[in-house]
Amino acid sequence: MSNGHDKQWDGIVIGASLATLDGDSGYGDIADGALAWRDGVITHVGPRDALPGTPESLAREVIEATGWITPGLVDCHTHLVFAGDRAREFEMRLQGESYEAIARAGGGILSTVRAVRAASEVELLAQSLPRARALATDGATTVEIKSGYGLDLANERKMLRVARQVGEALGIEVRTTYLAAHALPPEFEGRADDYIDAVIEWLPQLHAEGLVDAVDAFCEGIGFSPAQTRRVFDAARALDLPVKLHADQLSDLGGAALVAEYAGLSADHVEHTSSDGVRAMAGRGAVAVLLPGAFHVLRETKLPPLDAFRGQGVPMAVATDCNPGTSPLLSLRQAMQLACTHFRLTPEEALRGTTVHAARALGLQDRGALRVGMRADFVQWRVGHPSELCYWLGGDLCDSVRVAGTRVA
Amino acid sequence: MSNGHDKQWDGIVIGASLATLDGDSGYGDIADGALAWRDGVITHVGPRDALPGTPESLAREVIEATGWITPGLVDCHTHLVFAGDRAREFEMRLQGESYEAIARAGGGILSTVRAVRAASEVELLAQSLPRARALATDGATTVEIKSGYGLDLANERKMLRVARQVGEALGIEVRTTYLAAHALPPEFEGRADDYIDAVIEWLPQLHAEGLVDAVDAFCEGIGFSPAQTRRVFDAARALDLPVKLHADQLSDLGGAALVAEYAGLSADHVEHTSSDGVRAMAGRGAVAVLLPGAFHVLRETKLPPLDAFRGQGVPMAVATDCNPGTSPLLSLRQAMQLACTHFRLTPEEALRGTTVHAARALGLQDRGALRVGMRADFVQWRVGHPSELCYWLGGDLCDSVRVAGTRVA
Ligand SMILES: [Zn+2]
Ligand SMILES: [Zn+2]
Repeated sequence: MSNGHDKQWDGIVIGASLATLDGDSGYGDIADGALAWRDGVITHVGPRDALPGTPESLAREVIEATGWITPGLVDCHTHLVFAGDRAREFEMRLQGESYEAIARAGGGILSTVRAVRAASEVELLAQSLPRARALATDGATTVEIKSGYGLDLANERKMLRVARQVGEALGIEVRTTYLAAHALPPEFEGRADDYIDAVIEWLPQLHAEGLVDAVDAFCEGIGFSPAQTRRVFDAARALDLPVKLHADQLSDLGGAALVAEYAGLSADHVEHTSSDGVRAMAGRGAVAVLLPGAFHVLRETKLPPLDAFRGQGVPMAVATDCNPGTSPLLSLRQAMQLACTHFRLTPEEALRGTTVHAARALGLQDRGALRVGMRADFVQWRVGHPSELCYWLGGDLCDSVRVAGTRVA
Repeated sequence: MSNGHDKQWDGIVIGASLATLDGDSGYGDIADGALAWRDGVITHVGPRDALPGTPESLAREVIEATGWITPGLVDCHTHLVFAGDRAREFEMRLQGESYEAIARAGGGILSTVRAVRAASEVELLAQSLPRARALATDGATTVEIKSGYGLDLANERKMLRVARQVGEALGIEVRTTYLAAHALPPEFEGRADDYIDAVIEWLPQLHAEGLVDAVDAFCEGIGFSPAQTRRVFDAARALDLPVKLHADQLSDLGGAALVAEYAGLSADHVEHTSSDGVRAMAGRGAVAVLLPGAFHVLRETKLPPLDAFRGQGVPMAVATDCNPGTSPLLSLRQAMQLACTHFRLTPEEALRGTTVHAARALGLQDRGALRVGMRADFVQWRVGHPSELCYWLGGDLCDSVRVAGTRVA
């Protein structure tokens, strides 16, 4: 047998309640559950009573647990590889400084670009790892990480390489997204179309190096136009890479519809998405990724069209958007809390948003629920009910985290 | 020598930056600092360069540190001793249930009262300890804990005893507050004045048992009237106990002025406090305790009169208000983040609010700043600037926590 022992399963957790999220509604809860795996894949999910033998006879490792077990959380939208931070800028804003004054003092996204460019690969990894570790120790087993602070070939490559290294160092899965079309670098000022030419030229090279799982852009008045976004998406399509988009955060540029047109994975932010945009997403199965951290920090008031998403059956994911400027979030639980508070998601919607729907937003079919055949990614929580994951701010509720059956936190 | 060794100091931390919060404004920062203590009291604060000898010649224990050191954080308003939680109620609200439906389903504050009454002292401690530990591992060295879910003599005593045990178990200091006038217990329905008689009768007994450091009440339309509050305050005054008040949270009943009249420590919540109330507080040196957790969870919009507090020199503290109904906060950092986001406090104001001003709100003069003669309560943080303490949501920034020189986390 491939697992090197004569038991049917490699491991089993018994006694905890399971929130399987299997099925279309509810937590899919199983009291006093049993969850088993072999070769990194879930082989059994059910009540302990229904096991076909004693746990010891069935599995090499038997873990007695309490509390609740959920699928491993999936953070489907982060910018967590960066250097420096922007806490001082946060402070200046609260001291009443204008955006102009902050920019003059060297703040804003370009300050992060400068810091990333100045950092070596080793330094960038050292600075990024604690953030990814914070996500993982609060339950994240799959984390998407975008480039987009390098804005030239060498520095975008550096970011994506560091993203891969983060995954290897922590034993979690990192999905990389090429987001060179995030901001216009100073050397291209006034030449956005030329910059898009460069973005398109770099993509196949980085893809050939195995560094790109998906392609993203920032489609906004202060970002890139829909026409420029199309060019980036066309380049992705030529490589068979899935696309996603920072869409309709500050204004409605039709970003959601653009994602749908390219059969993209997700439209993210989507505060200003129109009903046409929602319908287009629904038609193509795109996920709406809600980012309540930026909404909270920027004190936005325009809510995403939640009822339209619900009504049209657009799956809603929730992510940290971990980034130094607008969403310094280091925990998916806190993202869920903010989604419930600001967007009035139910805790069940928020938990689907960081599991099954977030996996879908990354194009991953093998995780996000506790079901036989899925990857054995799961988290054991010290809670009496899954709604507590959305209820507490702060604290340490996470007992253990496993990726493909192996404990990582 | 009393410390059993021949060095001048018991310990010294060198290398970290110090945010002393000594003085009336700024962080009181010292780069590459040295902080020493003996017999639990700070004996030296300054730049490392200015030490009168090598660290090894001066102190028995020498700790090389990086990042920033702040005073130990003080949480001056919590209800963290309780049983059960109200996450399901939180969920029902988000599912659109009315308050009436939730009350019929057994929710609301009386559900916590039932759970506290049903719990043994041991159970209550077991449930409360992880919450206090969460606060301590995120930097709290002094925590106030209120009674107020027992609402009869035996159960208020049980809560206050558990509060003391929490402090002993964790090595942090717990200050207890008698808050029997928190809600009307079912057995007194329609007889609020009779209940206040009982509250006043229980107080001297619990005080004689060493369980009461201060006295609080919930003065509100849905709580107790100003006249009833006065009777509680008079009873406190007769025992020379300081008072504080849940004041003007939902409406202006003149609670802040009442606190001032009794030379109380603090008026807490204070969203609806009038300018007369602010003036009265300023005249008597009362602290305004801001509780942004409840503001966040209840999605309040009425801001406390922050500019009036600033203009009149009323010190502003920030606390978690940790409680199961309206503020499930397990971290003072998160309270500071919410204070900056929702109330636009500067990070410096927020940090003063959880150190020097919070200590003052508890009547404690021996902590809240890094100054010779203060208790050696301090926290070492993995941050590049103190504003980061207010910036991140989630994560683990706390390297070590010391109370009177002894490491507790
Ligand atoms: Zn983003
Ligand atoms: Zn309170």
